[in-house]
Amino acid sequence: MMIVIMEKNASIKQIQDILQFVEDSACTPHVSKGDENTVIGIVGDERGLVSDKIQTMSGVEKVIPTQKPYKLASREWKKDNTVIRVNGIEIGGNRITIIAGPCGVESETQLLEIAQIVKDAGAHILRGGAFKPRTSPYSFQGLGERGLELLAKAREKTGLAVITEVVNPSQVELVAQYADILQIGARNSQNFALLQEAGKCNKPVFLKRGMMSNLEEYLMCAEYIMANGNYNVILCERGIRTFETSTRNTMDISAIPMIKSLSHLPVFADPSHATGKRSLVPPVARAAVAAGADGLMIEVHNHPEKALSDGAQAILPEEFFALMQNLKQLSVVVGRSL
Amino acid sequence: MMIVIMEKNASIKQIQDILQFVEDSACTPHVSKGDENTVIGIVGDERGLVSDKIQTMSGVEKVIPTQKPYKLASREWKKDNTVIRVNGIEIGGNRITIIAGPCGVESETQLLEIAQIVKDAGAHILRGGAFKPRTSPYSFQGLGERGLELLAKAREKTGLAVITEVVNPSQVELVAQYADILQIGARNSQNFALLQEAGKCNKPVFLKRGMMSNLEEYLMCAEYIMANGNYNVILCERGIRTFETSTRNTMDISAIPMIKSLSHLPVFADPSHATGKRSLVPPVARAAVAAGADGLMIEVHNHPEKALSDGAQAILPEEFFALMQNLKQLSVVVGRSL
Amino acid sequence: MMIVIMEKNASIKQIQDILQFVEDSACTPHVSKGDENTVIGIVGDERGLVSDKIQTMSGVEKVIPTQKPYKLASREWKKDNTVIRVNGIEIGGNRITIIAGPCGVESETQLLEIAQIVKDAGAHILRGGAFKPRTSPYSFQGLGERGLELLAKAREKTGLAVITEVVNPSQVELVAQYADILQIGARNSQNFALLQEAGKCNKPVFLKRGMMSNLEEYLMCAEYIMANGNYNVILCERGIRTFETSTRNTMDISAIPMIKSLSHLPVFADPSHATGKRSLVPPVARAAVAAGADGLMIEVHNHPEKALSDGAQAILPEEFFALMQNLKQLSVVVGRSL
Amino acid sequence: MMIVIMEKNASIKQIQDILQFVEDSACTPHVSKGDENTVIGIVGDERGLVSDKIQTMSGVEKVIPTQKPYKLASREWKKDNTVIRVNGIEIGGNRITIIAGPCGVESETQLLEIAQIVKDAGAHILRGGAFKPRTSPYSFQGLGERGLELLAKAREKTGLAVITEVVNPSQVELVAQYADILQIGARNSQNFALLQEAGKCNKPVFLKRGMMSNLEEYLMCAEYIMANGNYNVILCERGIRTFETSTRNTMDISAIPMIKSLSHLPVFADPSHATGKRSLVPPVARAAVAAGADGLMIEVHNHPEKALSDGAQAILPEEFFALMQNLKQLSVVVGRSL
Repeated sequence: MMIVIMEKNASIKQIQDILQFVEDSACTPHVSKGDENTVIGIVGDERGLVSDKIQTMSGVEKVIPTQKPYKLASREWKKDNTVIRVNGIEIGGNRITIIAGPCGVESETQLLEIAQIVKDAGAHILRGGAFKPRTSPYSFQGLGERGLELLAKAREKTGLAVITEVVNPSQVELVAQYADILQIGARNSQNFALLQEAGKCNKPVFLKRGMMSNLEEYLMCAEYIMANGNYNVILCERGIRTFETSTRNTMDISAIPMIKSLSHLPVFADPSHATGKRSLVPPVARAAVAAGADGLMIEVHNHPEKALSDGAQAILPEEFFALMQNLKQLSVVVGRSL
Repeated sequence: MMIVIMEKNASIKQIQDILQFVEDSACTPHVSKGDENTVIGIVGDERGLVSDKIQTMSGVEKVIPTQKPYKLASREWKKDNTVIRVNGIEIGGNRITIIAGPCGVESETQLLEIAQIVKDAGAHILRGGAFKPRTSPYSFQGLGERGLELLAKAREKTGLAVITEVVNPSQVELVAQYADILQIGARNSQNFALLQEAGKCNKPVFLKRGMMSNLEEYLMCAEYIMANGNYNVILCERGIRTFETSTRNTMDISAIPMIKSLSHLPVFADPSHATGKRSLVPPVARAAVAAGADGLMIEVHNHPEKALSDGAQAILPEEFFALMQNLKQLSVVVGRSL
Repeated sequence: MMIVIMEKNASIKQIQDILQFVEDSACTPHVSKGDENTVIGIVGDERGLVSDKIQTMSGVEKVIPTQKPYKLASREWKKDNTVIRVNGIEIGGNRITIIAGPCGVESETQLLEIAQIVKDAGAHILRGGAFKPRTSPYSFQGLGERGLELLAKAREKTGLAVITEVVNPSQVELVAQYADILQIGARNSQNFALLQEAGKCNKPVFLKRGMMSNLEEYLMCAEYIMANGNYNVILCERGIRTFETSTRNTMDISAIPMIKSLSHLPVFADPSHATGKRSLVPPVARAAVAAGADGLMIEVHNHPEKALSDGAQAILPEEFFALMQNLKQLSVVVGRSL
Repeated sequence: MMIVIMEKNASIKQIQDILQFVEDSACTPHVSKGDENTVIGIVGDERGLVSDKIQTMSGVEKVIPTQKPYKLASREWKKDNTVIRVNGIEIGGNRITIIAGPCGVESETQLLEIAQIVKDAGAHILRGGAFKPRTSPYSFQGLGERGLELLAKAREKTGLAVITEVVNPSQVELVAQYADILQIGARNSQNFALLQEAGKCNKPVFLKRGMMSNLEEYLMCAEYIMANGNYNVILCERGIRTFETSTRNTMDISAIPMIKSLSHLPVFADPSHATGKRSLVPPVARAAVAAGADGLMIEVHNHPEKALSDGAQAILPEEFFALMQNLKQLSVVVGRSL
């Protein structure tokens, strides 16, 4: 159903034109004459085609859909939380899942050292970028397939599942051969060609929120993946772009419980990218768990001053250990475990 | 000190003009010739007068201050947390302070009932608006002085301290006669005439962040009050305006630890105005405490469907009780108490 | 009329509760059962009271008003453009009105020199702040009443009408004694106490858009003034706050024709505050006239390097002369004159 | 060169560590002791590696680069405007270039009719999407290669050059076989894999600004294409995302002259996507030309009520004719021609 609000001064002719059009489209109109405006409810426009056209007709002030544009991603379509099993971990279940590791895979030594550290601290999944989307063409762009091989090696040594980013539709298959979970980054969250391809692969997709996507648009991005057959989508709030510049982005903390009410998919938070500042990562990580996040993605580096990307937001091993202890207690307060 | 970055193509004459001007202003220039730009450091411009003018001179690309524009509000000026004592409560100390009550004072019965409820649940301070800034001139504007009298009555009955908003510089004195803490709302956060007047009164000021103020501007608003002699300022993150419309505002959760690092003043959070949705208030309240907030301001109403303002964001008495229990456990996890 | 969209899973009981409540409120409900949601149109809720409460009832997804919240400011209430006569000028008529002058009144010499310059260039109204809202309590705050006297003197000498800002409700009367038009600045655009007071004075009010106000909220600010009896309100787009920081604000150029369609009030633009950069003022001034602005407010200074505020955005006398010539030609292209 | 501002309380040890690190990196430090902070200028860090790391060192408040991160796209690198020749048209020269046509290629009849209309009205280039990035997976996604063939046919019939969007790196070559100019849309503006591929093709690239990109980031996107060898990049302001929802996006009109000062590349404006409303397209189109745009991209449809996408923002043939007449006069006022 959708609702058409006519302009205050809409003529009878304009209203009749709408009604005619609705009937010609095999839909049913319901007219209500208000004190000021006439309102027309339209039933039967399942594909939204009528809506698009009525918006362009004269006398129409606005057209309001009464249904959400996403279906498969909605809580209405699936009441129970989606739980995704990866490597023995249940993502989206009662237990909170921690993904940790360096921003980028830089070398075998770096990756293996950090992998061991985050495993020892209790993390469940290892992160590390092999293909890095960088704002400058002159910055380190990642090790590419060599990075994927190192991730596989780290998995073998530590037993941790691994997640890494894919940036090109043509590489989805390649990345899916190495990674347990594919990550799609914020800048590619509306790269529909990539979403479609990820929807055809058989690995779970960790889809970050675009820094300018509202929640409806964000859930439509998940819908793109699901509509292509892959129902294992994990969402992640990582900060949106606002006028505030003292942090890299603005963590939209309310989005966590809000998405949980709109969708059955697991929702994570990434305090590293949201804040861009090491000192803010622990408090914002705690806040995300307190707000109901199903997991966290955190950048950890043992030598951040030597990191080839994002060193300023990576926390140190000892900070990560302390945070994990803290999160264990906190998860109990919110009825979860870690 | 400030730094002047000259344009890449700046002429020797343009550089000399700057140097001459700096010397004429009794300041000292330090010139560094870079590989591409010339940079001039200027020492001795305490009042910022030179900076404003150099920005208008030719050949200048930008002028960057190295000092924060606020002093009294800064952590550098005062290392230790400011603790404000009101009615036996220590605001900004180890214990988390809860301010709760209805959006507006509507009647004696309404106020006394809610006051008792929030007291029983463990709140420390009663909120309630007597002068309401409403976006429509046709909406309920508050009971005015009658509302102040009712707040005083509620304090008498319950022993709770009371906080209420002041919207007009000419009413600061009146409101200060009744209230224990004066509140300045988000829409008036850059109403400098009001800030100055509040700076001259002897009651603590609870200053909400403007929905368009970045942290530096926000701290400058606190500075306005402090520069007029009133050092007892309590800050409150209540959501900023962003493109996201599924919540009323976007709670900037990172702002809480960020302000704590920049300033010695107590920092609260208002999950009711930040979200505008009852169901989001508890998770966002928990998040704020987990992020380090010194206190919360929460709207509670026993009959939200009858509230004359903001009913949709007020939580019910039983929800408030449950939240308080939850926050008690949570505060321990972050090394505080409630 | 308003529309209530029920949740997809709303129960029959929830729907009946709404209908009962609507009838108890002496309004008429119209129910439409859609393919997925039930929608209820409600006629007769003129004061919006029912709407506020229904939002808090269970089973309700959202409540959508079909009418604009502002009346007196709306184009629907008054079809013809409002034309305001000041000192022989018709603001909002076919002719474009130019307001120019310094940011602040600094001295008699400064003001009289600049007044003569802008008059010679063809401006119609002289601007100059006597009470300056500054983000720092340590910055120049204006000459106060002495500034008002100098404005009156400049009017006497040049014949130009004068406009100046008022920042405190208690000073509306004083400022109205000197100024031909009262200005309310962006930071005070939702200072309702000030709007109410300005609504009671007999001078036109030049109301700048708040940097975080959307158009509906902005027109509600105008409504505040009009609801108090003063129908002579001039609107002014001066840039909104966005994530872009290369300009001081982001001029919302589309707002000019958009407001013209929503409201009968004159709409100006302020390219000086919108951009904060001298070199951008002429192109953005041209853009505003091309988009249909009824006038411009431009900062001009003969010695910007000595200005006590905002020197970086003031254009020089020769630039202002050239711009005025250019605008004369441009106004013809858009069917206006200057 | 870059500038390191130390914290007010930075220790001598912290400062020495920085100096040591700078020297170890074969760069030269310049130390200035200010009244409050110590500032260190660093010369010789051409690749920005030192900068990234210093940001993570203790005692550092912030690191400020003095150079822009883009080179090839900068006005400093190339003083004269870039003029791109396509099909006998000079894009970025004195003459303003008009790109017009439907949002999407829907059928042969539709495309050929509209092509003829825009040609008759004086447009230079035909637009039409064959691959459509749609926010819903259930919306019309374009005709694909069949759409490209129709564009080629329309070019043959009308002599107009054609531009169409590419959304997948693997299709760059295909699209370049048919189109005279490749378009990269706002949602893909930071799809670096696509930018790199477009940088390797021999057709000009029309790169829309991302709705979340500030100007520096936007120019870095152009730099990506240029760094891969393709110097023929055309920029296009198409509205950014802000809190204002009465228009689809917010046209950042100041960005046009601002980019012209920062870069030598041609700058267009797209009033159709910026506003999303047919009635606002003509005034905003005029504004863009008045602000200095080198060209416009405008959606025109002869049957917008039947359009398969974006009908609400397409202007009608008669509106386009009237606008073109108006723009002809306007272009003279700004020293251009059409």
